[in-house]
Amino acid sequence: MKKNPFAARLAAFAGVLREKQLDAAVVFNQANVRSLTGIDCDNACLLVKADGTVVFHTDFRYVPMVHRVAPWLKVDDIKKVGGARPFRSGRAKLLKMGYESSVTHARFMQLEKAFPGATFADIDANVKELRAVKTADELAKLRAAEALNDAIWSEAQKKFKPGMTEKDMARVIQHLMIERGDGEAFETIVCVGKNAAECHHVPDDTVWNGREPVLVDMGVKLDGYCSDMTRNMVPARPSKLYKKVYGLVLEANRRAIAAAKPGMTAGALDKVARDFLTQEGFGKAFGHSLGHGVGIEIHEAPWAARKQKMVLRPGMSVTIEPGLYLEGNLGVRIEDLVLITETGCEVISHSAK
Amino acid sequence: MKKNPFAARLAAFAGVLREKQLDAAVVFNQANVRSLTGIDCDNACLLVKADGTVVFHTDFRYVPMVHRVAPWLKVDDIKKVGGARPFRSGRAKLLKMGYESSVTHARFMQLEKAFPGATFADIDANVKELRAVKTADELAKLRAAEALNDAIWSEAQKKFKPGMTEKDMARVIQHLMIERGDGEAFETIVCVGKNAAECHHVPDDTVWNGREPVLVDMGVKLDGYCSDMTRNMVPARPSKLYKKVYGLVLEANRRAIAAAKPGMTAGALDKVARDFLTQEGFGKAFGHSLGHGVGIEIHEAPWAARKQKMVLRPGMSVTIEPGLYLEGNLGVRIEDLVLITETGCEVISHSAK
Repeated sequence: MKKNPFAARLAAFAGVLREKQLDAAVVFNQANVRSLTGIDCDNACLLVKADGTVVFHTDFRYVPMVHRVAPWLKVDDIKKVGGARPFRSGRAKLLKMGYESSVTHARFMQLEKAFPGATFADIDANVKELRAVKTADELAKLRAAEALNDAIWSEAQKKFKPGMTEKDMARVIQHLMIERGDGEAFETIVCVGKNAAECHHVPDDTVWNGREPVLVDMGVKLDGYCSDMTRNMVPARPSKLYKKVYGLVLEANRRAIAAAKPGMTAGALDKVARDFLTQEGFGKAFGHSLGHGVGIEIHEAPWAARKQKMVLRPGMSVTIEPGLYLEGNLGVRIEDLVLITETGCEVISHSAK
Repeated sequence: MKKNPFAARLAAFAGVLREKQLDAAVVFNQANVRSLTGIDCDNACLLVKADGTVVFHTDFRYVPMVHRVAPWLKVDDIKKVGGARPFRSGRAKLLKMGYESSVTHARFMQLEKAFPGATFADIDANVKELRAVKTADELAKLRAAEALNDAIWSEAQKKFKPGMTEKDMARVIQHLMIERGDGEAFETIVCVGKNAAECHHVPDDTVWNGREPVLVDMGVKLDGYCSDMTRNMVPARPSKLYKKVYGLVLEANRRAIAAAKPGMTAGALDKVARDFLTQEGFGKAFGHSLGHGVGIEIHEAPWAARKQKMVLRPGMSVTIEPGLYLEGNLGVRIEDLVLITETGCEVISHSAK
């Protein structure tokens, strides 16, 4: 019989419930459910007890799929996820419940009715921390997705011609992602020239003259996992300022990669890049955090941002993406995806930078 | 000075607050915010008072965009949407608050802290009901999106060749949607042969031999609005059963279109199609509801489903999509998007059926 590929993570989660002296937890978040069972289902709720037993609740449309993909799972076929019905048996004994504070308030009110007299403790961050450490299979999928992203970037650049708009260039990438992978992991960002100074620029009709720098932030989805990378097409003769800024961002990226290792906090990793750019007098132009984990979702834990205390561990993924933005003038961001190893990190983005 | 294109909807919402004797409401849902202001922003919160005044809260990244697009809006630049800070002024007088039960429980707890002593009443459904009646400009955008969807469907069929897989055919449509519109409004569904019997089938590697029926459910996004249509490529010599089922579904679709008019409930519209299919002995094979509104979101109010009491009004959009699913055998769904008019409805899907 097939085994749960995420059995170890599920067991660790049951351990968290025991540590927190909870009887059980209800898990609704689609990515959380998938990270504990391997099942991707938009109408599901897990009931995980502190002893590690688990019941997968879903409706009739998905029951055959769950039986096929995860024969080891106990499935409860219910009409509507949410409300009291999914938990009709045995819930009287469940008085200390874990729940995700990311559920809607409407759903929380249903939970209060479903478990009368129970207290509720937030376990959202706990599941997300467990998800942050990838299994060997997940690491392989992240490497494959990032390698495909590298290949698409290489191919896309050959198709970019002066006279194209940002939207045209984004379309080139989108077509390749549909053809060779499972589409975009997030909306592709293409910024020509000074548009790169806006860190939330949406591709528009700005025309590329072939001499301006172009910033591209892209990630293809493959086999259920995301990828993420930012590169800049640097003009043959960049301005003195652009050259300087590019050099600083690249150095910040390299320093953070050299520093990344298990045992340090995600906040300390952010600090490596931030301190360097601040020393160089550009601290205020680095207006966002250094990076984030990538997996089932494009943005997940760990959060490499100021004051974040999550400790980096082998098997975590994290982007390293320092950027400098000079309003109305230019912007540079260089982003690699790395995997934390026993001794440091493995850079899985291989495109030239 | 530019005016809020949704001023009438916002005024109606303030009227709802007065009817419910609420002092004000906080609106976080991105589509709700957009439907009241025209602004599409992923980090925003509206404070709407019962007197109709409104403050748009967002962070520094979006403030210039809001000033440019909506100069009539009072904007409060805040570091983080959520928490107490957005409401620091004047909130002592706001004791009866409207809120959306679709916010996360974490956000609801922040609201309780931000408005100490206040009571909270759910106004989520009220905004969604106001959104269900489209403005003239929104109706024009829905017509344009659905017309583009028709054109893409026509072009896609010419590119379908025997030997293609469902995924190949979905890709043909995705490429066209990127090229001619703003991409998919939802994941395109392509079902070859008996795969159409699963109403949640995801395109896979099933090969089309050119003789089996193909069901396609597709919608392109254009200018911020969605479209939605389902068609079936019927084989030259369909089986007797397929022919019968197709005829019944088409008749159910036509009867519902003929019946749709203002003043009836969305539930009564569902009943027209359901009663007909039930009389014909196929009621159990129609396993979903008749339809849903389409607008900023692909699924929105009104919900044409059993027992739904929302009354249809001129300016509402609703899909009419009866379907019959015979497990392991065949499936047919025929879906048109219609707009409720003063006297009946206008069908805005023009593809042959």
